[in-house]
Amino acid sequence: MMFTASRLSEMVNRHIEELTFTRYPEGLYNPVTYVLSMGGKRLRPVLMLMAYNLYREQVEDIWGPVTGIEVYHNYTLLHDDVMDHADLRRGKPTVHKVWNENTAILSGDAMLVLAYRYMAQCPAFCQKEVLDLFSLTALEICEGQQLDMEFEQRKDVTEDEYVEMIRLKTSVLLACALKIGAMLGGASVGDSDALYDFGMNMGVAFQLQDDWLDVYGDPAVFGKNIGGDILCNKKTYLLIKAFERADEARKARLEAWLDAVSYTPEEKIAAVTALYDQLGVKELCRQKIEEYIRRAQDCLALVSVPVEKKRELENLLNELMYRKA
Amino acid sequence: MMFTASRLSEMVNRHIEELTFTRYPEGLYNPVTYVLSMGGKRLRPVLMLMAYNLYREQVEDIWGPVTGIEVYHNYTLLHDDVMDHADLRRGKPTVHKVWNENTAILSGDAMLVLAYRYMAQCPAFCQKEVLDLFSLTALEICEGQQLDMEFEQRKDVTEDEYVEMIRLKTSVLLACALKIGAMLGGASVGDSDALYDFGMNMGVAFQLQDDWLDVYGDPAVFGKNIGGDILCNKKTYLLIKAFERADEARKARLEAWLDAVSYTPEEKIAAVTALYDQLGVKELCRQKIEEYIRRAQDCLALVSVPVEKKRELENLLNELMYRKA
Repeated sequence: MMFTASRLSEMVNRHIEELTFTRYPEGLYNPVTYVLSMGGKRLRPVLMLMAYNLYREQVEDIWGPVTGIEVYHNYTLLHDDVMDHADLRRGKPTVHKVWNENTAILSGDAMLVLAYRYMAQCPAFCQKEVLDLFSLTALEICEGQQLDMEFEQRKDVTEDEYVEMIRLKTSVLLACALKIGAMLGGASVGDSDALYDFGMNMGVAFQLQDDWLDVYGDPAVFGKNIGGDILCNKKTYLLIKAFERADEARKARLEAWLDAVSYTPEEKIAAVTALYDQLGVKELCRQKIEEYIRRAQDCLALVSVPVEKKRELENLLNELMYRKA
Repeated sequence: MMFTASRLSEMVNRHIEELTFTRYPEGLYNPVTYVLSMGGKRLRPVLMLMAYNLYREQVEDIWGPVTGIEVYHNYTLLHDDVMDHADLRRGKPTVHKVWNENTAILSGDAMLVLAYRYMAQCPAFCQKEVLDLFSLTALEICEGQQLDMEFEQRKDVTEDEYVEMIRLKTSVLLACALKIGAMLGGASVGDSDALYDFGMNMGVAFQLQDDWLDVYGDPAVFGKNIGGDILCNKKTYLLIKAFERADEARKARLEAWLDAVSYTPEEKIAAVTALYDQLGVKELCRQKIEEYIRRAQDCLALVSVPVEKKRELENLLNELMYRKA
């Protein structure tokens, strides 16, 4: 039987909620439980289950790696929040706020090890391949986070550099989740590679969509405040393309807003958005998103299972891409 | 052929020096190279090689796990230094001083992943066992570090709690290194367990020795300043036993020194050392060290290889235990 994404998401949520860490000391494990109970889309475990479900039905057989990828993802959020000095995550205070920075570092370290322990709970026939892919992905994600931090200090980030950064920071984990699901399901190398590429392209489209929503999202639906990226001078696809297309006069105005110290938030958001509109980067970003969606669809088409089995992944792609929040 | 510990140490040092990380970005990998080039005893990789060498001679066959255990150990030092706000490590500025805290967190994360990648480079026949033991050990070390941080805030740490903390924070990694070496060498379960226990007891003796040297070491030989633990109120074996043995009057004097805010360092060190001497905790600590050394020797005796092959491990134990620095 084919499970729907929403059914799988419910199953993952229940499974994650029921996880208990009986090891000692509580001071190390309570933050882990806290982070995992914050919820979220559970996108990565759901993708792993969906890929597996293209080939097999006993989704309960792969709870180890499914749990591993979600624990891993939450460790990256935990450490990223420390590095970004973020106070809130999904509306709740972050671990270094509830406890302290040292606890956040150490519990994050423990979560990375726990992720490996869960990930290693997979059948012998593919354990080496699964762990090798997982390690490579985890290393790439460190590289992406490092690039992201370096780009904050730079004004000359190119489109290619930006796409490479989001590929490493975000997309490889979606790709890895799908490929591990496929490998666990016994897929051919061709199929698991195609699902990997599907995830990669979906991930880039997803992140570009994030950039787009931050400026052009519907404030009534979008969870965060519109214009947050503009206020913190985040080098998004929109900003990079705006600089690329601007003449000297507009470039100077953009620069002035990046360097400005005294302004009302609304004023800066309106001015930068107006420049984006004049430069046509809204459409440009939309086109780029569509391009990556098409690439993802092409990759999915290469997966050699009946079309009706792939419908759920295609629906998920569409849902994510035409989401409002 | 049996390699001496010092020969193996040279080989490890050369191997670690020659490691190059060709991945990008440099901002992530330069701190890794920096940390690994700081040197140190390379005790854990040497122990792994010595255990392996009890059964096999081709030590070059296990460079993967040997490198993995040293990269892992250096990741723990890197993150511990961030958590302790330590400025120096082996006389050189720490990573968060040379770069910054975020770089130290992230490069440490990358080193943990790199450690797994090296560790996974081992023959299929024991890969699962090796990785499972490595993960369990890495988790225990997080637990030990958490306990260590919690103990800083407590005044009622017992001897048993303290020994459990140093077992988790320090000894399990020595034990793990030896057991992985034995497993890679094809040792029996009995032998690899005995070597694990040997490492565990050696580790506890080693850490107690550290506490002892900090107060009673020869200043001319001891690398750090004598009395460092006393100055920072570290709950060492000596302090815990002193509190346990002290009458109310001496307990009050110890408490007063722990809470004191205005004093010269020499004064505090002399006063606390005098209390230790009166309470006989110097001898008590020495006896405890000897007890763990004997236990380690008993474990080594259980390893079913010819006595002459075990000589080098016994020598290393003696060297470490009667070291002056």
